[in-house]
Amino acid sequence: MAKATRKQRLTKKVYQARAKQLRARLVQLQVELKQVPFKVLLIIAGPEGAGRGNLLNTLAEWLDPRGVETFSYHPPTESEQVHPLQWRFWRSLPGIGRIGLYAGSWYTETLREEARNKRALAHVAHEAERIRDFERLLADGGTLIVKVWLNLSKEAQGRRLRTLRADPLTAWRVTDEDWHHHRSYKRLGKTARLIRRITDRPGARWHEVEAEDERARDLAVAQLLLAQFRQQQRHFARLRPPVAPAVVEPLRPSGRRRLLALPLDQELAERDYDALREEWLGRLSRAARAAFAAGRSLVFVFEGWDAAGKGGAIRRLTSAVDPRDYSVISVAKPTPEEKHAHYLWRFWRDVPRDGRMAVFDRSWYGRVLVERLEGFCREDEWKRAYGEINAFERELTDHGAIVIKYWLHISHAEQLRRFRERATTPHKRHKLNDEDWRNRRKRAAYEIAVGDMLALTDRPAAPWHLIPADDKRYARIEVLSTAARQIEAALED
Amino acid sequence: MAKATRKQRLTKKVYQARAKQLRARLVQLQVELKQVPFKVLLIIAGPEGAGRGNLLNTLAEWLDPRGVETFSYHPPTESEQVHPLQWRFWRSLPGIGRIGLYAGSWYTETLREEARNKRALAHVAHEAERIRDFERLLADGGTLIVKVWLNLSKEAQGRRLRTLRADPLTAWRVTDEDWHHHRSYKRLGKTARLIRRITDRPGARWHEVEAEDERARDLAVAQLLLAQFRQQQRHFARLRPPVAPAVVEPLRPSGRRRLLALPLDQELAERDYDALREEWLGRLSRAARAAFAAGRSLVFVFEGWDAAGKGGAIRRLTSAVDPRDYSVISVAKPTPEEKHAHYLWRFWRDVPRDGRMAVFDRSWYGRVLVERLEGFCREDEWKRAYGEINAFERELTDHGAIVIKYWLHISHAEQLRRFRERATTPHKRHKLNDEDWRNRRKRAAYEIAVGDMLALTDRPAAPWHLIPADDKRYARIEVLSTAARQIEAALED
Repeated sequence: MAKATRKQRLTKKVYQARAKQLRARLVQLQVELKQVPFKVLLIIAGPEGAGRGNLLNTLAEWLDPRGVETFSYHPPTESEQVHPLQWRFWRSLPGIGRIGLYAGSWYTETLREEARNKRALAHVAHEAERIRDFERLLADGGTLIVKVWLNLSKEAQGRRLRTLRADPLTAWRVTDEDWHHHRSYKRLGKTARLIRRITDRPGARWHEVEAEDERARDLAVAQLLLAQFRQQQRHFARLRPPVAPAVVEPLRPSGRRRLLALPLDQELAERDYDALREEWLGRLSRAARAAFAAGRSLVFVFEGWDAAGKGGAIRRLTSAVDPRDYSVISVAKPTPEEKHAHYLWRFWRDVPRDGRMAVFDRSWYGRVLVERLEGFCREDEWKRAYGEINAFERELTDHGAIVIKYWLHISHAEQLRRFRERATTPHKRHKLNDEDWRNRRKRAAYEIAVGDMLALTDRPAAPWHLIPADDKRYARIEVLSTAARQIEAALED
Repeated sequence: MAKATRKQRLTKKVYQARAKQLRARLVQLQVELKQVPFKVLLIIAGPEGAGRGNLLNTLAEWLDPRGVETFSYHPPTESEQVHPLQWRFWRSLPGIGRIGLYAGSWYTETLREEARNKRALAHVAHEAERIRDFERLLADGGTLIVKVWLNLSKEAQGRRLRTLRADPLTAWRVTDEDWHHHRSYKRLGKTARLIRRITDRPGARWHEVEAEDERARDLAVAQLLLAQFRQQQRHFARLRPPVAPAVVEPLRPSGRRRLLALPLDQELAERDYDALREEWLGRLSRAARAAFAAGRSLVFVFEGWDAAGKGGAIRRLTSAVDPRDYSVISVAKPTPEEKHAHYLWRFWRDVPRDGRMAVFDRSWYGRVLVERLEGFCREDEWKRAYGEINAFERELTDHGAIVIKYWLHISHAEQLRRFRERATTPHKRHKLNDEDWRNRRKRAAYEIAVGDMLALTDRPAAPWHLIPADDKRYARIEVLSTAARQIEAALED
């Protein structure tokens, strides 16, 4: 862990002179922040009495407030409880070109809970590992995370609390919980060290700052923020922009083999279809209601070739469910705001609450498909995405969501037939655009990317269903029946 | 109320031919919707069994799903309960260029509640009036609201429910509540007519559609949507773009007189300031905590001349409150997304939940200040805004929020002194820009606009405090003491 320790007491005069310089540099930082492609998160943590609030007030005073967002964490609200843990963190990230100041953070609840009821350190370590993974995701995505731990001795903490209590104006700030923390100083310190050790990683380092001299503390944190920002700027200046690959090499050839081995000649007669549809819709409807009643959410992912019939399959699927219980998310090109955010950010926004269902018409897998092949992200980015996506889906399934993923597969010839049909049918014409033809020309490259996706993100808790879709009726029954079966199996576990 | 009644049964063949034409036109509508400056809301309501869900599924099939958002309303969540009623409605509006389809809507809860417990019609009427006001606000802002009431006779409803119940696949859809609705057909119909009568207003008309023939129903709604869209398009084509006024005439000269009569020569010595600050901070801190404990939220609005000291006053104010309980919202120029939305939309997003505090550094009053004077909106728009703002603040205060508004007033000479100081101090330089100088040159016009604002939006429940701010110490004490007093008074009521 980096140390930025200062021992000497600063005089007011020296402090004011240094603060004046720092303020000009901080505001300059904010001007430049609007030009760089990354966000800045400043997390302040430390024992009670270390002055987290005062420090943040000072920083807020030094910075241009229009470029700052302050976050703090209360105990989770009801809508936070019915979503996976990370959901609330993703919702409290600063906007483009802004600094996020965190009075509380993802560390707050973990530390607070531990203070209230002594927990097994193994449990705390597990929580810390989840935080580490979340921060790694942000840091890998380019976010600068500066984490400050304010050091304060037990004696100094006692003095602070007594001073606050003695003043009628500030006495209310000192709660019983604070005194409890004070008495448990040693134990909490040990826990905090464990958490810091686990979460001190490249891109999200902890910096210890001595908090006894308030002036020195404020200056040290401001200087640290400036230094880290410059370092991140240099890092980004060295990065080369992504390019579309000239040759697409598979990471896992087995995935592509699995895709191409799928028989596409299955068919279903209209009469058989009607009977099977009734049967499976009923079973799916019962399974979905049982899942909702158990507080489980359903997350459907539809990927597939253009014109593979995703829309039609989705409409049959949703007809089994009360319209108030589901939403369909059609994933289009990212908006400017979404482009500046982590690629998973916009999907977190649509993660359903417990007992509801979300259907993604295209999804986060765009990262390893179109973004990989069109050079919308760097090679290290899409290569990292398989693990990130697995971790994302694990957050969902660990929370109780049932994640059901489809690849709708059609032959190159059938796709051409459907494209031509679209081109000549007025109300279907809007479904066909230049990008569809571009993607069609890249079929061979896409087969490799799809294969890698299937091989690298097919996990028992979030499996891929490959659906032969040259025959629409057959495909729709396959979608309904695999959905019903996966939900039934998940509820039996 | 407009009628789009159809009695004859449609054959499947005729239906399919008409549907094909309508689909092409609907998709064309969606293409054009991306070019027009308004949003489209389609609200479907009607008795159980009228097929709201089926109708929406059909429309969703006909439209390009990428341009559609479907909304439905569950009973309010905890986070919705701790905000004013309108908060959840504002959060469920479609994005730019999209159609919002409402399976449930703001009508759902009102109708559902009435069905459960027979309520006094006066209460229902009151709810309907609030909905009417909300819709008027949206419609005045240019949103096209198409409201469809599906007509279904009691006999037809009974047949539908029995058919659904007989089929194992759909039996689950028929709940005890539905049968209860069926038995109360007459009473609920009367209530629904009352609600429709109250909420049938220009810009948000109800259209009755016969629902017994499902095919005719779907076609009628699609045609209605198309016709309404064309009408709105023509309306917008006739509108002339806003222009900055050549001469600014006061609406209420008394407001400007009140502003200019404010004595600016008050001063406070540093020693007096320190004592008064301690006293008022303590009193404010106690009052704020009492408000939070009572589940009341605090909404502060800071308006004033450039360089009047809003930032400094806000920092003193917030130092009385736990950082986890407040947020400061610095209102900058709207983002592209915000520009396309109703001007109040972005402020609703930041309305605090019960027991929290929000401080707006500039606010919705920009509509009647900078937007009026710079011609960012039309004359009818800013003239309407006074009433809209009063209604908005009334939503807040009716829900229990305490709304405290300041105008920080400095002389033209003092402003010049502060501008010059900013220009020569490195860490203050970013606070001064060309717009500040532009606004300064328009002082006379702004005095008129500020005067109108004070005269037209000063209500007992949300009063304006005029703060003489040439002396910063005096101004800060005034801010603290008026805040403490207003909160204390509000809690006594």
